[in-house]
Amino acid sequence: MADINSKLEIGVTTGPIRGSKKIYVPAQANPAVKVAMREIYLEPSSGEPPVRVYDTSGPYTDPDAVIDIQAGLQPLRREWQLARGDVEEYDPREVKPEDNGQLGPDRSGGVPPFPTALRRPLRAKAGKNLSQMHYARQGIITPEMEYVAERENLGRARLAEYNRSGESFGASIPDYVTPEFVRDEVARGRAIIPSNVNHPESEPMAIGRNFLVKVNANIGNSAVASDVAAEVDKMVWSIRWGADTVMDLSTGRNIHDTREWIIRNSPVPIGTVPIYQALEKVGGIAEDLTWEIFRDTLIEQAEQGVDYFTIHAGVRLPYVPLAAKRMTGIVSRGGSIMAKWCLAHHKESFLYEHFDDITEIMKAYDIAYSLGDGLRPGSIYDANDEAQFAELYTLGELTKKAWEQDVQVMIEGPGHVPMHKIKENMEKQLQSCGEAPFYTLGPLTTDIAPGYDHITSGIGAAQIGWYGTAMLCYVTPKEHLGLPDRDDVKVGVVTYKLAAHAADLAKGHPAAQVRDDALSKARFEFRWRDQFNLSLDPDTAEQYHDQTLPAEGAKTAHFCSMCGPKFCSMKISQEVRDFAAKQNQPSTGFLAAAEAEAGMEEMSKVYKDKGNELYLPAEETTDPAE
Amino acid sequence: MADINSKLEIGVTTGPIRGSKKIYVPAQANPAVKVAMREIYLEPSSGEPPVRVYDTSGPYTDPDAVIDIQAGLQPLRREWQLARGDVEEYDPREVKPEDNGQLGPDRSGGVPPFPTALRRPLRAKAGKNLSQMHYARQGIITPEMEYVAERENLGRARLAEYNRSGESFGASIPDYVTPEFVRDEVARGRAIIPSNVNHPESEPMAIGRNFLVKVNANIGNSAVASDVAAEVDKMVWSIRWGADTVMDLSTGRNIHDTREWIIRNSPVPIGTVPIYQALEKVGGIAEDLTWEIFRDTLIEQAEQGVDYFTIHAGVRLPYVPLAAKRMTGIVSRGGSIMAKWCLAHHKESFLYEHFDDITEIMKAYDIAYSLGDGLRPGSIYDANDEAQFAELYTLGELTKKAWEQDVQVMIEGPGHVPMHKIKENMEKQLQSCGEAPFYTLGPLTTDIAPGYDHITSGIGAAQIGWYGTAMLCYVTPKEHLGLPDRDDVKVGVVTYKLAAHAADLAKGHPAAQVRDDALSKARFEFRWRDQFNLSLDPDTAEQYHDQTLPAEGAKTAHFCSMCGPKFCSMKISQEVRDFAAKQNQPSTGFLAAAEAEAGMEEMSKVYKDKGNELYLPAEETTDPAE
Repeated sequence: MADINSKLEIGVTTGPIRGSKKIYVPAQANPAVKVAMREIYLEPSSGEPPVRVYDTSGPYTDPDAVIDIQAGLQPLRREWQLARGDVEEYDPREVKPEDNGQLGPDRSGGVPPFPTALRRPLRAKAGKNLSQMHYARQGIITPEMEYVAERENLGRARLAEYNRSGESFGASIPDYVTPEFVRDEVARGRAIIPSNVNHPESEPMAIGRNFLVKVNANIGNSAVASDVAAEVDKMVWSIRWGADTVMDLSTGRNIHDTREWIIRNSPVPIGTVPIYQALEKVGGIAEDLTWEIFRDTLIEQAEQGVDYFTIHAGVRLPYVPLAAKRMTGIVSRGGSIMAKWCLAHHKESFLYEHFDDITEIMKAYDIAYSLGDGLRPGSIYDANDEAQFAELYTLGELTKKAWEQDVQVMIEGPGHVPMHKIKENMEKQLQSCGEAPFYTLGPLTTDIAPGYDHITSGIGAAQIGWYGTAMLCYVTPKEHLGLPDRDDVKVGVVTYKLAAHAADLAKGHPAAQVRDDALSKARFEFRWRDQFNLSLDPDTAEQYHDQTLPAEGAKTAHFCSMCGPKFCSMKISQEVRDFAAKQNQPSTGFLAAAEAEAGMEEMSKVYKDKGNELYLPAEETTDPAE
Repeated sequence: MADINSKLEIGVTTGPIRGSKKIYVPAQANPAVKVAMREIYLEPSSGEPPVRVYDTSGPYTDPDAVIDIQAGLQPLRREWQLARGDVEEYDPREVKPEDNGQLGPDRSGGVPPFPTALRRPLRAKAGKNLSQMHYARQGIITPEMEYVAERENLGRARLAEYNRSGESFGASIPDYVTPEFVRDEVARGRAIIPSNVNHPESEPMAIGRNFLVKVNANIGNSAVASDVAAEVDKMVWSIRWGADTVMDLSTGRNIHDTREWIIRNSPVPIGTVPIYQALEKVGGIAEDLTWEIFRDTLIEQAEQGVDYFTIHAGVRLPYVPLAAKRMTGIVSRGGSIMAKWCLAHHKESFLYEHFDDITEIMKAYDIAYSLGDGLRPGSIYDANDEAQFAELYTLGELTKKAWEQDVQVMIEGPGHVPMHKIKENMEKQLQSCGEAPFYTLGPLTTDIAPGYDHITSGIGAAQIGWYGTAMLCYVTPKEHLGLPDRDDVKVGVVTYKLAAHAADLAKGHPAAQVRDDALSKARFEFRWRDQFNLSLDPDTAEQYHDQTLPAEGAKTAHFCSMCGPKFCSMKISQEVRDFAAKQNQPSTGFLAAAEAEAGMEEMSKVYKDKGNELYLPAEETTDPAE
């Protein structure tokens, strides 16, 4: 256990993602706004320009950036915030021992506080409202909106050649995202830009059904010091692979300090579930929770810079008995805490009763609501039941209350839902919550695959993303079984990125197919390195390839281990293409065949020259039966 | 390289799947037919009967079975076949050196032939037709159909308590499967029972949209002897985890012998792509293929017992140029071979021209057609194009021709298809092919995730299975990158089993939800071992659990590592349920709260007595944000 006074050693993964370079693109509307993206370079033989992709990894993948975990990231948005003239600095709430679970004099097991001098947080001046929704409704296009517009348009200029197809189920995805479009979406409540004024390090991003589908990764601290380092590392690791936001679901001790380390080093919005920390403050006894303790926790986290709060204000007293007849009751921790509180006191939820008070806090810092689905189903059996939808209607009612004060809202969704019941969730959510962004966990489409729940839920996530969900909360292979480690975090993020991408394609997002096309073209042309680099996880792709064909030459070989040189269908296809081109000159057809054969013989010779070691004659394949 | 005359050592995994027992259930319609199933036993505290699940693992999971790879499995169906009086034994075609790729005197690299004395194969007597479809159309219910009916009804007697829900898109899934229903489905061509008369070792199974969705695993030999052992091992390994059929996609040398080892030891139907072996016989030169060589290969494989043949008879000369404008051309190996043949000769495909001749062979052995989709799309860009659907219409035409001779047919499908274009594939297939079973590879819903293509395709597989696909061809993590190893085979099978199950649930299959409910109930009641045992992969589930809570006591603990004892939402739910039950006696509400608290304190004491080692206070979780 580290000494609380010793320096915390935190190592994170830095450096470019294989085959790509971090770039900063000046926003067309405002060149002073430089938008982080990543360019994947293709082999010169391709004759193709680099492929621009959305990048969530922050400065960690920029070799020119100086990364100092002890100092945190640069405050990208601070100037924009101050320029608006509606904020004030003030002396923060004092950090109390119980914020870190240190109820007695024993501070062993504590972690060193984040080392920079105490900041003076910002908040709205009296009578002001810092929310992006508020600006949007005033007709103001913020730099955050300009950033988002450019970010969502990745390489869009090159898109003239692509046809849009897709079924978007009533979404309104534009051909091109303008800052005005972003403003309008935020003003309507159809998108949010989570951006606590005290998290100026974050790069603006939007969550909404008319933008690219986003992915959230959950992490959280443990009680021993070394794990704070592990959690910061996991945060950086998760955004490297594409997490658009990160939730810090820490419980136990050191909650406050852990969060500070994470936020100061995070270029993506951070979400939390404040009731977790509030519960720690009352020794884990749900009945002892009070509005005052909860409110104090909100202020504490608001000052640190949390960008969105999960608030389970929809778990109302009358709904709790509805869950009693379920197979798996209440599986949401926050939901069960509130249910217990309601029943113990025989009173309406203090979150519901004080909702407007919470909203006052949210707008003073621009924290977005993530209205929690405390009564979501925890099994296929319980999917789409009365308890679940009763809560959803209440979340809709609360959405309207938050919007009355111009506060940004998204809505959390299930859970465990069989495929045929997924669409109803989306439709009811759109209806009840006025198109506020939906943010769903999975859903898991079966209960029978513990150890593979990233996949059971990835199936549901892709579908609900297609139907209109704006952000997908990842599930790792350890779901239901244990704590995800670093590898699990990566598998969870990559699985959800591909599910989100499948949804973008199906919705007909005009920028989505660029990367698929580039990769498929590379595949057809045997540009192996381009194939790896264009994939969501270049390291794993190359490693798998090298398990059977490790030789360097195989990276440029015009065949692969699945078929070997003689059988390659892609190679034969190229010959077919050549044949077809000559079809109008029938007399040359046979000549072409002879030429192709000669080409194959030549290749065969090349391979023999290499000592036959590359020859793996198509023993087996997962390729389709043909 | 093994000496061809030495005994081949083959090790396979045997023994029960954790927590379950192999059982043989007498078919209700015919108690002489004993149907293999598996029963998962639950903890006595559950008060629940064992859960019966579909079992594809054959005798390998039966501790009482004597497994001798050198002798092969018992011929389960031989008596039934002989009893029908329509077969004759005959002297088989002689095995030629070129059947194993041994073109010269050099037999090094060969594998020992399967050691049992040469069998005399069976075939139909002159004028007879052995296909299950033929019997079905005569009104005959075969023991194979009785077996299938019982197999599909797993535990169905217990289903009175379950509500069916689901959207089956026009399927006709009955509440209860009778042998007559099976006969009718086979007679209509809506289901097939692949059952080559020379593969009597196979346990009857049905592929059809009104039955449980099935999964195929691809394996195949390599050129060195030791790999034959590896392929037999992979076959046994794949069926242990749920593969309903296995395709032997061997190429290179030793194709004949490898196949013999696999078939003689396989309790599931085996499929092949005969053109692969035919191509080997002509030295890999597609243009040199002839109908005679192909026909001879069909007879060779028919005599060995292959249950279904992939035949790419839909790749017609006029369709080939349609593929020339594609991004990724022809990605099917069989398809590209035939395309090359057609173009080189400027002639119509000999498979198409000789289709009726092929059908004559099929009906003499009861081999089912798996009409190959040689022009399936290999990229998102190429999905649902003219080439693909032109071929599909031809497959429909060929289906009708096969049905005229009462031969069983299924249709292979894509490929790479974005989600919004999947349904069109299913609808066009149902329309064109008269509801013949669809058998699809994935489809992959994006191109950008090499290394994770079991997941990108699992998403598409679950969907197309829901829409009506009868069998899903697995994809492993190595797809597009290399040869799957044993671990990849398992991941591929489990992923596809969960996708198939998600489809069964969504279609409203009346038996499907039993296992989900049993697992969810076990989860809610903290029966950890039951949770593991009920899952598709008990070994991985337990291993993941033990990574954070290895202590034996944690298997019975009423909490888990995600939340720890204080925070457990499932535990709180149980308390909520108790509360709700007492709601009509308001005065006892607070008393109950006190009781619950006392219970938690007691549990807390238990944990302290264990030295606190189990206390992992909810540091992090992949659980949803709440």
